[in-house]
Amino acid sequence: MTRVRFGFIGAGFMGKAHSQACRALKACFPDFPVQVELTTIAAASAATAEAAAERFGFASFERDWRDVIARDDVDAVSVLVANRFHHEIVLAAAAAGKHILCEKPMAMSVVEAEEMTAAAERADVRTMLCFNYRRTPAVLYAQELLASGAFGQPYAFRGVYLQDWLADPGIASNWRLRQDLAGSGTLGDITSHVIDFAQFLLGDIERVNGLMRTWVGERPAPDGDGRVKVDVDDEVMCLLEFANGAIGSIQATRFAPGRKNFLGFEVNCEGGSLIFDYERMNELWISRGHAGTQGFERVVIGPDHPYGKRFWPIPGIGVGFHEIKMIEIHDFVRSVATGENARPDFADGVQNQRVLHALEVSAATGSWQRVPS
Amino acid sequence: MTRVRFGFIGAGFMGKAHSQACRALKACFPDFPVQVELTTIAAASAATAEAAAERFGFASFERDWRDVIARDDVDAVSVLVANRFHHEIVLAAAAAGKHILCEKPMAMSVVEAEEMTAAAERADVRTMLCFNYRRTPAVLYAQELLASGAFGQPYAFRGVYLQDWLADPGIASNWRLRQDLAGSGTLGDITSHVIDFAQFLLGDIERVNGLMRTWVGERPAPDGDGRVKVDVDDEVMCLLEFANGAIGSIQATRFAPGRKNFLGFEVNCEGGSLIFDYERMNELWISRGHAGTQGFERVVIGPDHPYGKRFWPIPGIGVGFHEIKMIEIHDFVRSVATGENARPDFADGVQNQRVLHALEVSAATGSWQRVPS
Amino acid sequence: MTRVRFGFIGAGFMGKAHSQACRALKACFPDFPVQVELTTIAAASAATAEAAAERFGFASFERDWRDVIARDDVDAVSVLVANRFHHEIVLAAAAAGKHILCEKPMAMSVVEAEEMTAAAERADVRTMLCFNYRRTPAVLYAQELLASGAFGQPYAFRGVYLQDWLADPGIASNWRLRQDLAGSGTLGDITSHVIDFAQFLLGDIERVNGLMRTWVGERPAPDGDGRVKVDVDDEVMCLLEFANGAIGSIQATRFAPGRKNFLGFEVNCEGGSLIFDYERMNELWISRGHAGTQGFERVVIGPDHPYGKRFWPIPGIGVGFHEIKMIEIHDFVRSVATGENARPDFADGVQNQRVLHALEVSAATGSWQRVPS
Amino acid sequence: MTRVRFGFIGAGFMGKAHSQACRALKACFPDFPVQVELTTIAAASAATAEAAAERFGFASFERDWRDVIARDDVDAVSVLVANRFHHEIVLAAAAAGKHILCEKPMAMSVVEAEEMTAAAERADVRTMLCFNYRRTPAVLYAQELLASGAFGQPYAFRGVYLQDWLADPGIASNWRLRQDLAGSGTLGDITSHVIDFAQFLLGDIERVNGLMRTWVGERPAPDGDGRVKVDVDDEVMCLLEFANGAIGSIQATRFAPGRKNFLGFEVNCEGGSLIFDYERMNELWISRGHAGTQGFERVVIGPDHPYGKRFWPIPGIGVGFHEIKMIEIHDFVRSVATGENARPDFADGVQNQRVLHALEVSAATGSWQRVPS
Repeated sequence: MTRVRFGFIGAGFMGKAHSQACRALKACFPDFPVQVELTTIAAASAATAEAAAERFGFASFERDWRDVIARDDVDAVSVLVANRFHHEIVLAAAAAGKHILCEKPMAMSVVEAEEMTAAAERADVRTMLCFNYRRTPAVLYAQELLASGAFGQPYAFRGVYLQDWLADPGIASNWRLRQDLAGSGTLGDITSHVIDFAQFLLGDIERVNGLMRTWVGERPAPDGDGRVKVDVDDEVMCLLEFANGAIGSIQATRFAPGRKNFLGFEVNCEGGSLIFDYERMNELWISRGHAGTQGFERVVIGPDHPYGKRFWPIPGIGVGFHEIKMIEIHDFVRSVATGENARPDFADGVQNQRVLHALEVSAATGSWQRVPS
Repeated sequence: MTRVRFGFIGAGFMGKAHSQACRALKACFPDFPVQVELTTIAAASAATAEAAAERFGFASFERDWRDVIARDDVDAVSVLVANRFHHEIVLAAAAAGKHILCEKPMAMSVVEAEEMTAAAERADVRTMLCFNYRRTPAVLYAQELLASGAFGQPYAFRGVYLQDWLADPGIASNWRLRQDLAGSGTLGDITSHVIDFAQFLLGDIERVNGLMRTWVGERPAPDGDGRVKVDVDDEVMCLLEFANGAIGSIQATRFAPGRKNFLGFEVNCEGGSLIFDYERMNELWISRGHAGTQGFERVVIGPDHPYGKRFWPIPGIGVGFHEIKMIEIHDFVRSVATGENARPDFADGVQNQRVLHALEVSAATGSWQRVPS
Repeated sequence: MTRVRFGFIGAGFMGKAHSQACRALKACFPDFPVQVELTTIAAASAATAEAAAERFGFASFERDWRDVIARDDVDAVSVLVANRFHHEIVLAAAAAGKHILCEKPMAMSVVEAEEMTAAAERADVRTMLCFNYRRTPAVLYAQELLASGAFGQPYAFRGVYLQDWLADPGIASNWRLRQDLAGSGTLGDITSHVIDFAQFLLGDIERVNGLMRTWVGERPAPDGDGRVKVDVDDEVMCLLEFANGAIGSIQATRFAPGRKNFLGFEVNCEGGSLIFDYERMNELWISRGHAGTQGFERVVIGPDHPYGKRFWPIPGIGVGFHEIKMIEIHDFVRSVATGENARPDFADGVQNQRVLHALEVSAATGSWQRVPS
Repeated sequence: MTRVRFGFIGAGFMGKAHSQACRALKACFPDFPVQVELTTIAAASAATAEAAAERFGFASFERDWRDVIARDDVDAVSVLVANRFHHEIVLAAAAAGKHILCEKPMAMSVVEAEEMTAAAERADVRTMLCFNYRRTPAVLYAQELLASGAFGQPYAFRGVYLQDWLADPGIASNWRLRQDLAGSGTLGDITSHVIDFAQFLLGDIERVNGLMRTWVGERPAPDGDGRVKVDVDDEVMCLLEFANGAIGSIQATRFAPGRKNFLGFEVNCEGGSLIFDYERMNELWISRGHAGTQGFERVVIGPDHPYGKRFWPIPGIGVGFHEIKMIEIHDFVRSVATGENARPDFADGVQNQRVLHALEVSAATGSWQRVPS
């Protein structure tokens, strides 16, 4: 295996982000023995696909996503469309023996996610989910510190994802606010990212207990004509129990005026703590003890942190979303080359989806729910 | 009523803080038509009381707290001892017709708190609990903003109280770690402060659902001889439902390495948000909207905020714990003068205690608990 | 010497602050073998003095500051009036053998400051200037760290004092904006504090080079009738050379919209750095090295820092202006008791005044000025 | 003009950054009517150039930079080598009629910079200097706010650029520490960036007064054999006077332990202030007034800020160095297409170089230096 030829399905914001990352890969990973090619792309319409191919640097385009999967010269597909299409596409891609890089949330239900995973396992193809935020170098560094055992037994995780772009009740409805199109609201869209952080940093979640709220129950219709019901959640709060004994809480909302993309966590362990906030993605705050004079050190991410040498000669120059996507693509392509899944793979995604489902049941029933594994 | 003559019961850190505040009151509230006098003090021993009287500026001391209550020239008592003594002292003080300023947590149980409240009501004396942190000018300002309705419907409260002084498992046990002496651990000691914030800012809590954990189950005995069991909680996490429709979460722990006294909250409402952290007690962060370019304004507290003109001519000179205690004493003394309880009074304390109790039941049973009112 | 009997001259904000500190001293320093008494006070009028005596807890008052100095039962005077009166009062106090605690800035000129110092030396009385901000525990800790040599050779000092209370050109003139009454503007009022920080942390300043600007040249008259000229500086910027080889810069202004009391510094040394901001007075930021992964640790001040055990049992409870003034009074009283000046004494004040003067000459001539010593 | 064919001279970190930006341009600016091509590249050796061409996506490579300039199919050259080569290359490129994008600092001297500018003007080619940090969206936004006049008269600029990668005296010497190879030390390397900020935000600098220091006078030789002298500056501090009446100060150093890439400024104007720190490049802090309750708003950069819609659908996703370079390339290419220089062009670079020179003279003579214009 010396090259991975990509077929993209989807040409929106993520189509842009993934293709840029693919094209920049060789510059930052010059010693990487795998050639990445942007072979073809499909989108909502042939015209969109054609424009995207030209714009993003694909060698060709297809009229239909099935045509992408049908091509012999495509080794891997990037599934970059709304999650209600993931199941069908992934099943077809797996059946065709394509490796699969899939945007989050994985699916509309646990059943869908399980079927996708089973299909990929049967086909023995590599899978990976784009919970991209865990690939922020500061988060990778946090995970390394925790995994090293330097901080001892983890006690607590507090995760938040706060935005405010729906706080205005005058904003019209859109597909993200319809259960039939999005599956859920805040839950799948952003809570899933915090759960991914929790699983990445502390491992399996065993039990959950949650609240879900819809703050604005109806909104102007997208076409401006009348009002439509909002049938998904606007905010999620929950408690967690981890298999390793730690406990946790999560708040996720799109109704926190003034908060833009505050995706953050604090982890407290026996011997130290970590704090991260994606809005300041180039920092990790570390406390390495608990003496009376011990505070948190603000560490600016640089060459000595995960993947840092790939990007800059000194600390503080700063990664953005682009570099995170490059790391993601790199890790996926490497998994294709080595034959070993990079994380989070579909199995991880099933676990994430199970937590989301358990949260829904918990919120509906008012009881703790065990997360199967 | 032109004067309030205080009898203190307790001469520790809070004895120092309360007496200093009493003595400084006239300087900052020169127009206040009530004279405050430090009449007498009792402590664990007569010798301690005598030294404290001299040190803190009391006119006399007593050998026993009952003697303080028995004095005719004492109008009000400050109950500044460990909470397992509150019930007995308060009942006696109320029976003697003394007004009562009582440190938190109020009592060892809801029943105790209810009896204390009933006794005070029967005696028609003023009561107030020392949840002092709510009197930080920035918190008072936050409450004013919320109460004004300027931010509309409250959606969410996220409160934390993180410390690390017990994170070291080598720290010996003490009375705060014994259920028979302290009633509970983190729950009464610091969670109660966050609940007070929640009640002060958003009103009644209707339902709770919580987790409690003891991270270090035994510790060196205080006398260094062997090890003793820890039978109170080290960490509390919970979800809240407010009567006004908002939801909330709380984390409180003494096991967050690097955190010293991080007592903070974020409140998100329909039209704005507020953030506070006691470690930066002279700041309030305010977002007054949710436009794409809208962030949080860091407001430095000064003369134009609650009680500010009492303390400084310009913003940013800074209150500390002393000024907070002065505001507390002022408000209590005013309540004695006017005959109207200042908040939080014993009735508020009962509600706080009911939330604590509901949390214990919830943690034990794994179910949502309704808080009676 | 077992007691220090104070006579205050001045009953404004500083009269309030000093007297509260005196009265609280015993509570926080119970083992301190000196009795502090508030014996008498004089103010702008007898009525003001009488009210202040009652309000602040003095045993008596005087009609004239000369009467304070004339009293045999006064050991020390606190000079708390505008700086144009300092010279006359201090000379008289020294002649009467009184110890002298004097607010800043010390004097209207270097000559005045030198005469005051000489008079105090002749009389062999203790002197101290109230550059109170250096007694913030975090600043005391910074100085200890630097003095310990742990950070090696100091390289650079960057100090700022930014406020905005004069930024509005509609604010009427007052005595602080008149050279005949205040001596200078920003220079003596706030630049002097930054210079005190510089001298406290890094020692003698040898050469200065500065800019001074008046941004609003005339303002409404205080009585609202017409406009008056502003003949003092609104902003100062300068460069510094220290005797120890370090260099520095200072910006001080009352025209920084949004800044309230931002008095801060950064010190870079061979082996570490320190950052302080008075608006967050309970924090010191420390870098103890310069590895690629080395950042600043945010240390929350507590019992283990200078004077901390006097105030609280755990970190993060917070000092405010009151505690700083208590430390100041304590150190002055101790100097009276021990016979050894506490710093900054009048000799330090002369050096501060010489820097201010050199800055004025430098700004007027556009050249580096050597600071005599 | 429908395309710009680039020839790169230099294949280091900046070769990587520029080429990635060129290749990503179409994805983010799909409506941009100019085609960018990576035609050829030269580097220190033919082998390096060949590897870089492959790695960065160039159609070809050249053995010598003169061959790049000689090619008819190259419209523009990117000069990405050490600044001592800029003069010769730029003169040749201009003579060949190539448009020129040149890394900073512009040249080894004012004379060189003037000759480069004159050559470009004679040839009527577009020029631009890569003071990339001014193209951070937050800085572009700051400049828009100031230029709009919303804040009124500017009063003060305080700029810093603090790093610590040379703080360790054990680090071996390199070309950046030799005057013959680098021209200067901190001055050209990082002070020049702060000066660019100052000029971008507040316009022409008229007078300067500076200090320069070399903290570590000799270092281990690069080959480890013996020690070599450091004959460039390690730290610069200076005062500035702007043509618009504002004043300023700058500190730039590579000896601030704990600081990594702290490139920041504060600007105070009559009616508002701005604060920026590149380590948190996705934030701008804005004060829009000076009322007692007025603080700074932390604005998270997003789609509504300059170029934001090009990159993300919501705020807070974050630009890094890559996006800044894309904006730079875009603006340069547009200038080639429109025939109008983008700023900072060579004329701006001459002014920057004149300030650097005036600083050197000032530091050597201890006097204010006028900056010619």
